[in-house]
Amino acid sequence: MRFDRLWRGARLATLAPDQPGLGIVEGAAIGVSHGKITFVGPEKDLPTGFEADEIEDLHGRWITPGLVDCHTHLVYAGDRAAEFEMRLAGATYEEISKAGGGIVSTVRATRAASETDLLMASLPRLEHLLAEGATTVEIKSGYGLDLATEAKMLRAARRLADQHSVTIRTTFLGAHALPPEMNGDKDRYIDAVIAMIPELAREGLADAVDAFCEGIAFSVDQTDRVFQAATAAGLPVKLHADQLSNLGGAALAAKHKALSADHIEWTDEAGVAAMAKAGTVAVLLPGAFYMLRETKLPPIELLRKHKVPMAISTDSNPGTSPLTSILLTMNMAATLFRMTVEECIAGVTREGARALGLQDSIGTLEVGKRADLAIWDIERPAELVYRIGFNPLYSRIWQGVPQ
Amino acid sequence: MRFDRLWRGARLATLAPDQPGLGIVEGAAIGVSHGKITFVGPEKDLPTGFEADEIEDLHGRWITPGLVDCHTHLVYAGDRAAEFEMRLAGATYEEISKAGGGIVSTVRATRAASETDLLMASLPRLEHLLAEGATTVEIKSGYGLDLATEAKMLRAARRLADQHSVTIRTTFLGAHALPPEMNGDKDRYIDAVIAMIPELAREGLADAVDAFCEGIAFSVDQTDRVFQAATAAGLPVKLHADQLSNLGGAALAAKHKALSADHIEWTDEAGVAAMAKAGTVAVLLPGAFYMLRETKLPPIELLRKHKVPMAISTDSNPGTSPLTSILLTMNMAATLFRMTVEECIAGVTREGARALGLQDSIGTLEVGKRADLAIWDIERPAELVYRIGFNPLYSRIWQGVPQ
Ligand SMILES: [Zn+2]
Ligand SMILES: [Zn+2]
Repeated sequence: MRFDRLWRGARLATLAPDQPGLGIVEGAAIGVSHGKITFVGPEKDLPTGFEADEIEDLHGRWITPGLVDCHTHLVYAGDRAAEFEMRLAGATYEEISKAGGGIVSTVRATRAASETDLLMASLPRLEHLLAEGATTVEIKSGYGLDLATEAKMLRAARRLADQHSVTIRTTFLGAHALPPEMNGDKDRYIDAVIAMIPELAREGLADAVDAFCEGIAFSVDQTDRVFQAATAAGLPVKLHADQLSNLGGAALAAKHKALSADHIEWTDEAGVAAMAKAGTVAVLLPGAFYMLRETKLPPIELLRKHKVPMAISTDSNPGTSPLTSILLTMNMAATLFRMTVEECIAGVTREGARALGLQDSIGTLEVGKRADLAIWDIERPAELVYRIGFNPLYSRIWQGVPQ
Repeated sequence: MRFDRLWRGARLATLAPDQPGLGIVEGAAIGVSHGKITFVGPEKDLPTGFEADEIEDLHGRWITPGLVDCHTHLVYAGDRAAEFEMRLAGATYEEISKAGGGIVSTVRATRAASETDLLMASLPRLEHLLAEGATTVEIKSGYGLDLATEAKMLRAARRLADQHSVTIRTTFLGAHALPPEMNGDKDRYIDAVIAMIPELAREGLADAVDAFCEGIAFSVDQTDRVFQAATAAGLPVKLHADQLSNLGGAALAAKHKALSADHIEWTDEAGVAAMAKAGTVAVLLPGAFYMLRETKLPPIELLRKHKVPMAISTDSNPGTSPLTSILLTMNMAATLFRMTVEECIAGVTREGARALGLQDSIGTLEVGKRADLAIWDIERPAELVYRIGFNPLYSRIWQGVPQ
């Protein structure tokens, strides 16, 4: 047996679904060839007479799957720091809106930016994720709200993958907010969104379609129409569901066999049961919960009871979660949502992959999976969740190659 | 006029107390000589014919005073990740205690560690603070609870300053917890603490004395005795006060003209007024508030009303705030305590310096102050507070020298 590269002296959290807990293996090795994992297990099980072009002894360091940030709005122009400052100084939403704040300000800046502007603005945010071991990042559009700008955002997202060794998955989120030029006519805008879907699908710009189903955004019926168009175009769907109220978003997501229903603070047991049946992943977003000082916790116990897979993600966006740390996201999920260490780590690896429909290729350390790894200077996996504002990444491996 | 070094093309948040708000100066320069600031102001006010050994154009980057983390327990051995994991998995405090957890586990590990072990364990934590622009860090003892180990902790803290270009201020916190060998006899242990103070003062190991005044720790009377001994030894005092209940800790601190009263979630208006009169700084610690999921906010409005200076700090410690990010601490102070951007930035510069009694030498950008600077890749100071898990530090300057 021959490996392009072999790490030995490692401790593994494999996250393999057929193993209990984190799937821990001590005194372990991982061998890779052609970007894929070809050996994983105790060193003593390495085939006799194996060869490897490169061997590194990790002296007991831990290896996890490379981290997956499965829900971000990373590509945008401008920021909302001024608005944040105004709000803390006591400004009302009306005053902020009059001063040009809110999501409209991000739409305005994103429309005005060139594709390269967007790329450059987003790069440092992506780099912070990579510095903490991310190997796969999902990025949504949704600050364009017209075909040209949505396409520009998705192209900028795709181009990020040319700048760094990372897998980018793009999601079209045209149904994010109503653009001002629609003068309050949501149905007319949904028609426009539906018309964009086949265009973007034809250009291969979107891997999935998402929508924001909420009183302040789009109704269940409008979302349903968007999802029908996505299905017709052969694209899987995801949903911002039940964040601020229970509109039955999770159930709607399940009806469309959505990859994930995201936020879901207000989802009830019927919604959770529907998700379980449909295989829809719950994507929990503690950064927005923290930033908005929400008090309604997502239904973690119900999700456990119905065995709905739970992913967690930064929701990185300029308005409600200007967060670019997956490690901190894990700490917030533990601290604020009382998720266990195992759930937090699975949430940014195995379940994050599942929320993107990539569970067959990434998210665990198993033979045949892509060799996306994060190597950590820690004594136990719980440190990844327990520490706050600390980055013990030793090395990031993408498709078998140290970065 | 001659400078060792000059930065031009800068935007400054000087935090000078005679200027409104953050003391912003645009199109500015800072010149330093012999480690001190010798010019600060608009570039056009630079003296004609000045010379400088080194000049850097910052192209509009922002300069703030170097950050001051004025309340940490950075030096300790072991960690509490396993305990954190157990608690999330549903273990009770009793079960954790039986498994050897709690502060006693940190005391045990710290006693067992050599001075060099402690130094090595603390270095990565310090380095995370420095990576975000810290130039002054306070470090408390308090996991030894006997003279030899408390002295060892303080020596390790002092030695950190040999490893990196940073100012370390040490605080003796013998009255942190009751060591197990005292069999519940708090008065006897306080006698022992009082006996340690002159020893540590003689060796020059402590710059101040702190205590934990709380139902689960020491009473007002016991704290009073410790403070009398500190004053007799010529050391200023600080206090962990009113974190979990209102014992009148803030008033006690004020009575002893304490540099600061820290935590103070439960302090009432009489306590705040006493602090104002005594010039005692309020040190607010949102990391512990977050980690413990507290709901009782510190009396920010009262502190504003009585014009008590507010510092904020990481409280970095293994039990209740394993936090090593000052930037994140600012975000938590804004998000959880609703402090303004100006208060947050002043809290980790000017007021942090004041909480250490160093307001005459650091904490603002003024002529005569030490040239401890942080230079940032940002467009406006609010970004330092608004972003979560992001580090825009461009350069850290300690005593006039880029690090
Ligand atoms: Zn989102
Ligand atoms: Zn403390």
